[in-house]
Amino acid sequence: MAAPLPREWTGIQTFPVATQNKLVELLGKLKGDNVDTLTILVMGKGGVGKSSTLNSLLGDRFFSVSAFQSEGLRPIMCSRTRADFTLNIIDTPGIVEGGYINEQALEIIKRFLLNKTIDVLLFVERLDAYRVDSLDKQVVKSITETFGKAIWSRSLLVLTHAQLSPPDGLSYEDFFAKRSQAVLRYMRLGAGIRRKEFEANPIPVVLVENSGRCRTNDLGEKILPDGTTWIPNLVKVIVEVVSNGSEPVVVDQQLIDGPNPNNWGKHFIPLILAFQYFFVIKNIRGRIKQDIKNERIPAWELRDMGRANGKF
Amino acid sequence: MAAPLPREWTGIQTFPVATQNKLVELLGKLKGDNVDTLTILVMGKGGVGKSSTLNSLLGDRFFSVSAFQSEGLRPIMCSRTRADFTLNIIDTPGIVEGGYINEQALEIIKRFLLNKTIDVLLFVERLDAYRVDSLDKQVVKSITETFGKAIWSRSLLVLTHAQLSPPDGLSYEDFFAKRSQAVLRYMRLGAGIRRKEFEANPIPVVLVENSGRCRTNDLGEKILPDGTTWIPNLVKVIVEVVSNGSEPVVVDQQLIDGPNPNNWGKHFIPLILAFQYFFVIKNIRGRIKQDIKNERIPAWELRDMGRANGKF
Ligand SMILES: Nc1nc2c(ncn2[C@@H]2O[C@H](COP(=O)(O)OP(=O)(O)OP(=O)(O)O)[C@@H](O)[C@H]2O)c(=O)[nH]1
Ligand SMILES: Nc1nc2c(ncn2[C@@H]2O[C@H](COP(=O)(O)OP(=O)(O)OP(=O)(O)O)[C@@H](O)[C@H]2O)c(=O)[nH]1
Ligand SMILES: [Mg+2]
Ligand SMILES: [Mg+2]
Repeated sequence: MAAPLPREWTGIQTFPVATQNKLVELLGKLKGDNVDTLTILVMGKGGVGKSSTLNSLLGDRFFSVSAFQSEGLRPIMCSRTRADFTLNIIDTPGIVEGGYINEQALEIIKRFLLNKTIDVLLFVERLDAYRVDSLDKQVVKSITETFGKAIWSRSLLVLTHAQLSPPDGLSYEDFFAKRSQAVLRYMRLGAGIRRKEFEANPIPVVLVENSGRCRTNDLGEKILPDGTTWIPNLVKVIVEVVSNGSEPVVVDQQLIDGPNPNNWGKHFIPLILAFQYFFVIKNIRGRIKQDIKNERIPAWELRDMGRANGKF
Repeated sequence: MAAPLPREWTGIQTFPVATQNKLVELLGKLKGDNVDTLTILVMGKGGVGKSSTLNSLLGDRFFSVSAFQSEGLRPIMCSRTRADFTLNIIDTPGIVEGGYINEQALEIIKRFLLNKTIDVLLFVERLDAYRVDSLDKQVVKSITETFGKAIWSRSLLVLTHAQLSPPDGLSYEDFFAKRSQAVLRYMRLGAGIRRKEFEANPIPVVLVENSGRCRTNDLGEKILPDGTTWIPNLVKVIVEVVSNGSEPVVVDQQLIDGPNPNNWGKHFIPLILAFQYFFVIKNIRGRIKQDIKNERIPAWELRDMGRANGKF
């Protein structure tokens, strides 16, 4: 059975005309480069605004958003066409639970993506969070282990809740600079990218405000505190990432089965057991054999039984 | 050496007169009940606004606040007097790191509190967070294991960042109700309190907005979106908790050494080792002895060595 034809992207018509024109121009640029499909994957922790950002981008409430709980473990794809251009957007659930990476969720995401090509990864975080933690680095590490390090050449850092009042004593620009620096640092470390390499190919950062209370300009376009129209800006940076000369990530069976640093240790379990047998158990065996020959119990054992210096 | 005399609480003078009057009245009420010292402990995850809330309460920048990183592992106490009344406020670092409870930080907090009496615990969370997770429950569980379940009869849930725009489609009141419900639920579960018991003695919830951009009323007092002057309200609820008939928590040596469900398992380690020795190693020993008598190696072992059915 062939996949159903994707629906027309009608959501674009919900944007102010000025935004629509910018988007059409950007997609035109892609088509000029012979790109006629764009597959966008979104990942991050729970509740950071992944689904909301995708809905903002689509101009549609396709993905379910909740203020209080995550919506299931499965990724969801939305495909839309416009003038022979196909946009595939894949939303995924948050991958942290109880202080751990939810490996099951990651595995499901990976299988869902089999035979798909990821053109862009949106890695989502909140601008208005105040701490980074080694668990955040772990999230990036897990994504790296799942899709390979190359995914980061195709990624953007998306910071939601951009319409914040900066903490006392900091300008918005300073806060944004420091917060994105902190997140980019853990991303670099989690992805295992060397500083030099990272500086040569920095991951672009994009601000997003999904709230219905996002301020707008005279043309009705949603804007950031500095006046940037953020939806066209997000699409612009996505187009730049697609055109940066790096390869998209093909999720084939090999990537799914392939050498995964996560699983690497597993192959050694039989070896470790064998090692234990030959060096530990056999050693105990040898010593016990010896003991039996001498018909003596070691003093420490007798002490435990309350009859040190005794004999059987 | 005697403890230095606490300094005069001058921070109160930074509040608008209307707020000062309310605070003086509330403290007067406590003194009327023969309470002349109040020791407030604050706990929660990192970056939720613990130190900021205490500074707001003091009218002072005593505790260091940072937008980007936690400030060390140690608790800090600030003592202030006013008209023979002593206010002790103890700030603590966030107790979660890398997806785990920072047991070391908890241990340091506990030792810091030795011989102190905790009158009130402020458990701090953000109002504008969108997910609760089993790690949150674990935070409450760890506090319970450290100070005993009784600490929760002396606690308030403080929700910071109260000046938020609610998510689309929800009123502020609905969002507040659902968010506090979600946090209270994990607190109840983490503390191991039965639903009935919890409903009979609910933990009060207080909203706080520490931002310098907090809206104010005509009298210059900081207010919540619904107009409540939140600093006097916080103090009012603290006074109610102190007067609710429950006992304050005395941190004595017994509480520190005492049976802690966390450490409980540790006492069993020698026992488990002894068990292993007698039932596992001795068993192996017995079987090996037997084997040696028969001068035979079990088939499975020979198979491992590539010479099944053989003899030594
Ligand atoms: N003010 C504001 N709220 C946002 C923004 N983005 C998301 N939210 C709110 O944050 C909450 C969670 O958003 P979701 O989009 O469901 O987050 P998610 O990352 O998809 O969550 P999971 O699917 O559970 O991982 C919702 O209440 C949204 O309304 C934003 O940019 N600004
Ligand atoms: N807008 C707003 N920002 C707040 C509020 N409370 C705290 N903040 C900001 O949140 C950041 C962290 O606040 P802190 O008070 O240092 O948080 P903390 O819980 O003491 O953090 P640790 O000591 O690291 O555990 C700072 O940038 C504060 O300005 C609040 O109610 N509203
Ligand atoms: Mg979602
Ligand atoms: Mg602090």
